[in-house]
This record gives sequence, C-alpha cells and structure tokens, in this order.
Amino acid sequence: MGLRLRPVDTSFYDLFTQSAQHLVGGAEILAEMLSESSDKAGVAERMRAAEHAADETTHAIVKKVNSTFVTPFDREDIYALGSGLDDVMDMMDEAVDLILLYEVETLPGELSEQVEVLQRCAELTAAAMPRLQSMQSLDDYWIEINRLENTGDRNHRRTLAKLFSGEYPTIEVLKLKDIVESLESAIDAFEKVANIVEQIAVKEG
Amino acid sequence: MGLRLRPVDTSFYDLFTQSAQHLVGGAEILAEMLSESSDKAGVAERMRAAEHAADETTHAIVKKVNSTFVTPFDREDIYALGSGLDDVMDMMDEAVDLILLYEVETLPGELSEQVEVLQRCAELTAAAMPRLQSMQSLDDYWIEINRLENTGDRNHRRTLAKLFSGEYPTIEVLKLKDIVESLESAIDAFEKVANIVEQIAVKEG
Amino acid sequence: MGLRLRPVDTSFYDLFTQSAQHLVGGAEILAEMLSESSDKAGVAERMRAAEHAADETTHAIVKKVNSTFVTPFDREDIYALGSGLDDVMDMMDEAVDLILLYEVETLPGELSEQVEVLQRCAELTAAAMPRLQSMQSLDDYWIEINRLENTGDRNHRRTLAKLFSGEYPTIEVLKLKDIVESLESAIDAFEKVANIVEQIAVKEG
Repeated sequence: MGLRLRPVDTSFYDLFTQSAQHLVGGAEILAEMLSESSDKAGVAERMRAAEHAADETTHAIVKKVNSTFVTPFDREDIYALGSGLDDVMDMMDEAVDLILLYEVETLPGELSEQVEVLQRCAELTAAAMPRLQSMQSLDDYWIEINRLENTGDRNHRRTLAKLFSGEYPTIEVLKLKDIVESLESAIDAFEKVANIVEQIAVKEG
Repeated sequence: MGLRLRPVDTSFYDLFTQSAQHLVGGAEILAEMLSESSDKAGVAERMRAAEHAADETTHAIVKKVNSTFVTPFDREDIYALGSGLDDVMDMMDEAVDLILLYEVETLPGELSEQVEVLQRCAELTAAAMPRLQSMQSLDDYWIEINRLENTGDRNHRRTLAKLFSGEYPTIEVLKLKDIVESLESAIDAFEKVANIVEQIAVKEG
Repeated sequence: MGLRLRPVDTSFYDLFTQSAQHLVGGAEILAEMLSESSDKAGVAERMRAAEHAADETTHAIVKKVNSTFVTPFDREDIYALGSGLDDVMDMMDEAVDLILLYEVETLPGELSEQVEVLQRCAELTAAAMPRLQSMQSLDDYWIEINRLENTGDRNHRRTLAKLFSGEYPTIEVLKLKDIVESLESAIDAFEKVANIVEQIAVKEG
C-alpha cells in the first residue's frame, strides 16, 4: 500500500474552480445587459443572484481555510485568491447595477469589446483553476491574461477619449464614465488573480 | 493561588473599544454637519480633532502589537481590526470635509438617513468591542451590521437615482456624488470591521 | 576570522533604492508634462518606458523574496514596501496619461505645486532607502514626508475649491478632477511607503 506523506485537501481546487465558473456566468449576464433589447431589470436580478452564489463560494473557501489543518498552499494565498476572484464578480455586478440605475439607454459600442475581453478572461481563469493542483503549464494562462489586459486598457483609453470628445452631454459622460470604469476594474481584477496564481506557483514550484 | 496559563494583555480590548467610541463621536459630528443651521467651518474643525484623536488610538494599537510578545489573537488580525476602524473615521472625515469644501448649501434628505445608519453602526461596533474578549454572542452584532449595510445600500442607490434624475445641475451632481459616495464607503467600512471580527471569532472560537 | 551569524542579502536594499530612483525620474517626467510647450505625446511615451522599468524592479524584488531563504526583514514587509513604491509610479503614470488622453490644454498652476511636492518626496525616499540597512536616523525622513503630505493636502483642497468655483465648464472640472486626484494619490502613496518603513524600523529596531 502506498503512503501519502502530505495529505492535502483537494477540494480547495474544486472551490476555486467553482468560484471562477461563477465569473463565466457573470460575464455572460453582463453581455446580455448590453444588448439594447434586453429586459434590464430582469437581467440585473439574475446578476444579483449570480453574485450571491459567488459570495457563498467565497465564504466556503474562507470557512474551509479556517478549519483545515494542512492547506495545499499558504493560508494567506488561499485568502488572496478567494477574495481576488470575488472582487471580479463585485466589479461585474457593479457595472450591471449602474446600467440599470443610471437608466443609460444607448451604450457606446466600445463597451461590448470590453465585455468580450471579460468573457475571455473568465473562461481562461476557469480553465486555469483545476491546473493549480499540478502547477503544470500555467504560463500560457498568465501570458494570455496579460495580453487581454493590455487590449482592455487600449479599449478603455479609446472609450474615455470618445466620452470626452464633445459628443456626449456632460451628465451622460458622468454616468458612462462610472460604467466604463467598473468594466476596466473587472479586467484589472482578473489580472490581479493571475498575479496571485503566479505568486503561488513561484512559491510552490 | 490560581495559575493563568496564557497571560494575555487585556488592554487591546480597551484600545479597540476606545477606537470604536471615536466613531460614535465622529458620526454625531457628521450628523451636525448636515443640519442647515450648523456652523460648517466650526463643525469641520471638531471633526478634524476627532479624526486626530482616532489616529492616536490607531497608533497606540500598532505600537502595542509591535512591542507585545503574546497577543490575544493573531497580530495580522489586530492590525486589520485597528486599521479597519480607522478607515471608518477617515471616510466620515472625508464626507464632512467635502461638504465644507464644495460649499454645498442644500443636501438631499437621503443623506440624513445614511448618517442615521452610520450612527447605529458606530453604536453597535462600540458595544461589540468589549465582547471580543469573551467571544460571547457576537452573532447579533454581525447580523445587525449586515442588515444596516443592506439598508444603506438601498438608500445609496435611491440617492444616486435622484441625483441623476435631472433635478440637479450637473456641477451639483458632481459634488453631491462625492459626498454620497464617502457616506457609502463609511458604511462599507463598518461592514468590513464586522467581517474581521467574524474571522477572528472563527479562528479563536 | 570573523563569523557572520546571520548572513543577509544586502541587495534587497539596492533594489529598493533602484525602485525609489525610478520615482525620482518619474516625477521629473511628470514636471515636464505640465510645461505648456512640452511635446505631450513624446513625454507620455517616456513616462510609459519609466513605468515599465519600475515594474521590472518590482518583479525583481518579488522574485528575490520568493527565492531567498533568509531575508533582511519580514517577507510581508518586503512585499509591502516593493508594491508601495510601485504604487507611487502607477499614480504618476496615470496623471501623465490622463493629461494626454483628456487633451487638457491649460492646467491650473496649483498642479505644478503638487508636482514639486512629489519631486521632493521622491528625492527623500530615494535617499532613505539605503539607510534602511542600518536603520539609522530615519526620523527626519518620516517627519519630512508627513510635512510634505500635509502641504500636498492643503494644495489639493485649494485646487478642488478652485475647480468648483464656477470658473471652469463642468466637463473641464470632470477632467481636471481626475488629474488632480491622481497627483493627490501619488503623494498619499509616498506617505504609505514612509509608514511601511516606519513599521519595519519599529519591528527590527
């Protein structure tokens, strides 16, 4: 019979994967919110439910780390990764919420490009989480997230320039800027998750 | 003669209680600031003094944690709780400061509701701090803070909708939005304190 | 032959000094950006290069802390100081970027005063980093940074009051407020670095 010297609880990986999968769902709901024909109040309600589900996964991670004696990697890194994933959801939820609240009718087309970036980031992150267990080949994930963040940053700057071009009334600029910045923050939050994963891999590798 | 196996320094609890009591005072000053008849410059000066007093308590906590060998709970949690309480004061101070600086004459009535939420949060937090020592029955505190944060969030969204309803000139929206957001941040900061307390209770319980 | 009981890697100090020297360069580029006759696109490109160079130093610090067995002070403090210095650069880079992006032609004179504060903070920080090794006489550094932060805060408030005085069109207020706030955040980030240094000195002293 084989002997496992360092028994680790694999289900942390399941919880991180679950958390990232909530983000895939959230990014999809956000994409629906941008469609002009969508029922904005209904879509926002589904986002709220998705955000609550993500919160529960985050709480499960925190509870598990507090009640587990041997964790697969540093406790503080587990907290950081859990709350990093949760931050992405909060930012996407904020974007949806502001679109509803500000009653913005026409959203600049650039916003769809940002949401596509977010959808791609969510898929990559969800695919990377199970690979944390073996620490195999996460380089492609970091490189691609960083490339997407650069794309997002260029989109963001182009959108801001458009907002301030004189095309929009100032009160609309004020509204749209908040929405645009929440999308940018969501992309940044994905990059932060990738940085935490990189740090874990360096320590454990 | 009895023997205490793990001598702990109780005065950390006194310092946390002191810190939370500064918040009770700060929330009161903030309420005065909203009254139309108040001497805004004078009230703002008292807020500044209250904020300095709170800073000193925070420094005393940091100094104590750095010079104490056996702390009643994890060093990092003591830092987190100390700076979490300090963050609330900073947010309330910012709100007072912006009201003075922007020379806003008429504040929407919704702001008073937010300040009432803040006053209630401050009282609950000040009552919870001494109970950290025995870790008895803090559930009611968390539940009530979370309920208040939800109320605050609904007020906040209603206020933003009002600001963007077309009732206010854009320049006033810009000013009021900053003030409204500092109140929201103060409430969020109280919730963060409650989360830190919960985490400490889970670890130590 | 003498015996060194606790071999420490001195080059952490070199890396922190290098990181702070990037800030001296960044503050200089920021000052150029404010000059009306400057080639804004060219200056912004140099800022981008400076920010990338600073990023590389930050990565070198993180890599070193992860691969070093005995660090000169707590790992978490090394991370905090490294990322604290990096945050200053990000804020200065953001200010330059916004000036270019928003195509602001005339900047209020108050901005030059804030950039002078930043330049002085950068020089003081760069001079303090090598002194971390001996922990000698860092009091003058903290006191002076705190004095500068107070000066910066007064400038900031005066600038905001001017922006909202009715002198500027609302759309310009919106643009200038973002720029003014990034300068304020850069000064705050220098104060945060000084606080981290103080904390390290207290622990190690």
